[in-house]
Amino acid sequence: MNTPELIRRKREGSTLSEDEIRFLVEGYLAGRIEEYQISALLMAIFFQGMTAAEAATLTRIMMASGRTYDLSAIPGPKSDKHSTGGVGDKVSLVLAPLVAAAGIVNPMVSGRGLGHTGGTLDKLDAIPGYRWNLTESEFKAQLEAVGCAIIGQTDDFVPADKRLYALRDVTATVESIPLICASILSKKASSGTDSLVMDVKCGSGAFMDSPKKARALAEQLVAIGTQLGLKTSALITQMNQPLGTTVGNALEVRETIDILKGGGPADTRDVTIELGAEMLVLAGVSPTEEQARTTLSELLSSGRALAKFTEWIEAQGGDPRIVDDPSVLASAPGLDIFKAPASGVAQSMNVRQIGVAANMLGAGRMKTTDEVDPAVGLEVFVNVGDRIDAGQELVRIHHRDGKGLEECRRLLAESFVFGEEAAAPLPLIVDRVQ
Amino acid sequence: MNTPELIRRKREGSTLSEDEIRFLVEGYLAGRIEEYQISALLMAIFFQGMTAAEAATLTRIMMASGRTYDLSAIPGPKSDKHSTGGVGDKVSLVLAPLVAAAGIVNPMVSGRGLGHTGGTLDKLDAIPGYRWNLTESEFKAQLEAVGCAIIGQTDDFVPADKRLYALRDVTATVESIPLICASILSKKASSGTDSLVMDVKCGSGAFMDSPKKARALAEQLVAIGTQLGLKTSALITQMNQPLGTTVGNALEVRETIDILKGGGPADTRDVTIELGAEMLVLAGVSPTEEQARTTLSELLSSGRALAKFTEWIEAQGGDPRIVDDPSVLASAPGLDIFKAPASGVAQSMNVRQIGVAANMLGAGRMKTTDEVDPAVGLEVFVNVGDRIDAGQELVRIHHRDGKGLEECRRLLAESFVFGEEAAAPLPLIVDRVQ
Repeated sequence: MNTPELIRRKREGSTLSEDEIRFLVEGYLAGRIEEYQISALLMAIFFQGMTAAEAATLTRIMMASGRTYDLSAIPGPKSDKHSTGGVGDKVSLVLAPLVAAAGIVNPMVSGRGLGHTGGTLDKLDAIPGYRWNLTESEFKAQLEAVGCAIIGQTDDFVPADKRLYALRDVTATVESIPLICASILSKKASSGTDSLVMDVKCGSGAFMDSPKKARALAEQLVAIGTQLGLKTSALITQMNQPLGTTVGNALEVRETIDILKGGGPADTRDVTIELGAEMLVLAGVSPTEEQARTTLSELLSSGRALAKFTEWIEAQGGDPRIVDDPSVLASAPGLDIFKAPASGVAQSMNVRQIGVAANMLGAGRMKTTDEVDPAVGLEVFVNVGDRIDAGQELVRIHHRDGKGLEECRRLLAESFVFGEEAAAPLPLIVDRVQ
Repeated sequence: MNTPELIRRKREGSTLSEDEIRFLVEGYLAGRIEEYQISALLMAIFFQGMTAAEAATLTRIMMASGRTYDLSAIPGPKSDKHSTGGVGDKVSLVLAPLVAAAGIVNPMVSGRGLGHTGGTLDKLDAIPGYRWNLTESEFKAQLEAVGCAIIGQTDDFVPADKRLYALRDVTATVESIPLICASILSKKASSGTDSLVMDVKCGSGAFMDSPKKARALAEQLVAIGTQLGLKTSALITQMNQPLGTTVGNALEVRETIDILKGGGPADTRDVTIELGAEMLVLAGVSPTEEQARTTLSELLSSGRALAKFTEWIEAQGGDPRIVDDPSVLASAPGLDIFKAPASGVAQSMNVRQIGVAANMLGAGRMKTTDEVDPAVGLEVFVNVGDRIDAGQELVRIHHRDGKGLEECRRLLAESFVFGEEAAAPLPLIVDRVQ
């Protein structure tokens, strides 16, 4: 096979065969095909797309580049959830023990945050003692004993994705739907799950800013996931305001525990229940969404989900006292209040910028070498549609010695649009793709 | 400036500024920007194109990467011709002395052939003693004394084009009109010419197979050339049959001399006169095309063009006896005849394949490391529209000890389409862009 000819065929809109995709990906990983050829191919894919079958083939070949977990020996339905990334999204921390309490095995392999979005591993790092680097046998043993585990990616976990993603990042080829799908699904399918519910975030804090784009991604994820033999469905959920009230790692763990105790912000709770209900139905644990919602609400109100959370955290070495004593979690020494500059109705928010504002304090990374401070972050007390009085407390800024505070306040001042007209509250679930 | 962001902007169809293009090209040449980023940019340009002003800026920045010839001290109008490449195209060898005899200074910097098309330097290498590597002062002195010179590219002649072309070749980004234009025009404008006539070949032996594509390229060449301050026009000429009768280096030199002696195939002669007339009018040497044609025909019939040819070849070290004694040129020891398999009318030819058939004998290169044999090649005695009898001699194959002969005959057998219907002879000049 001839690499320039394969690039040319993709450039002209042809579909590449399994042998051809394998030749390209394996050749790239083995150093037989140059990076400058693969980047040209990726740009051709950006413009010409891939069929669902073609993207599924790419996904399979990427999976074969490294370790995959075979969980078939563990009893029970395996199901997982993946979010495309948002601001304040701590759903995984609630959802994993919640669905495990409902009888699902949830094997979750997570990553770190980069850019304006947070990462689940960064949130878990805020829990003293939590160990994300389980061995394969520890991972499997915990899934069998507890029903859930959240671990990080080992170096040999889909190495093809690491190489391709790094190349896409520096060649402006990230925003390609089939490549996004192959990246996500190669990792999710390698975790050993049988079914997958995608949370495709949509809005000013998401990679997909419009419902149309989010639906296009969701449809491709479901189509390609299905081709891979995964039961897959997707919810498109609101990201035109941060999810819940907290943005920042220890703060988000606190909100997680509030939800598990039956309280917490309604939006975080409701999105978690919707995603969990989708998982229960897809995995065959509940016959209907309605019954699944009832099951999950009861697990939250009864404390059984909280007990599963404690069991899980303790199994992975985390300090279980965080559940009853929030002071075990890091807290920032500085507190600053961002007040409403004038009265009015909150019309819209630039959520991406709110995420960046939190990063300025140290809550996340703008580049991979940035250090994360678990204690700092934001509490945001305004939703779109709320009527606000001048001087009202909008955001609490938890900072360390004023680090990034000025920049954070400047970004926040630009992030909220207030006006006189009424504004409808935003629907939590924008769309659903099955 | 940020390279991925610039790639992204081109990907989205934006126009890059002069500073941005300079940042990218100079950064690439200096090793600050990676090849995998430039190849992704090239693929984005393939899909999104460039404005004429943008491509002219790219061309100027490419020119600035190396040596350019300043011919302003040499009296007389400087004009040059460039062909996009065909099979049997020996026009430059006739045209340079012909227009020099008409009072034009023709500084020509030429390249070697690759793929099915021939290269002017390869044809000149068939002339014993011809030296294409003149120094800059020798080049200028000869232009002033003789009026024409054809030299090869030094290593420091538009190095940006060498780097970019090599990268495009292995990343399927050759076929981009603005990139083709920048590659051609950076070299042509660096030769010091004031005006340029493009011969855009069109047909089965050309890079542009349809008149529509050829016209698109011609229009861009004229638009970008004009932006560069070059008087530029273009003829779109026939390449659905080889030009003239010969394909192969020494054979083409023989045909060149036949034309300069007032004979030779009508198509080679007529295309040369049309391109020369365009040069004379563009350079202001003749008031009308008609008068220019008369001037050029007289220079051929009077022997003055032949005398200029002899003067030029001798000035560059070539053996002038080739003019009167064809045996000074290499000739192949083997001669094989390809006959018409049946009677009928020649409907069409696969000219690219005829070019490859000649390469099989050693007349050209399929890859840069192939060695060229000046003696071998084809004489093709059929044009589209000709009525042919079974067994009639169609092609004479000049080979060396049967090398490549079997493959050559196989390709020729597939290259001609005969049928019963009449077929119109092909027009020589397909279109004209000014």
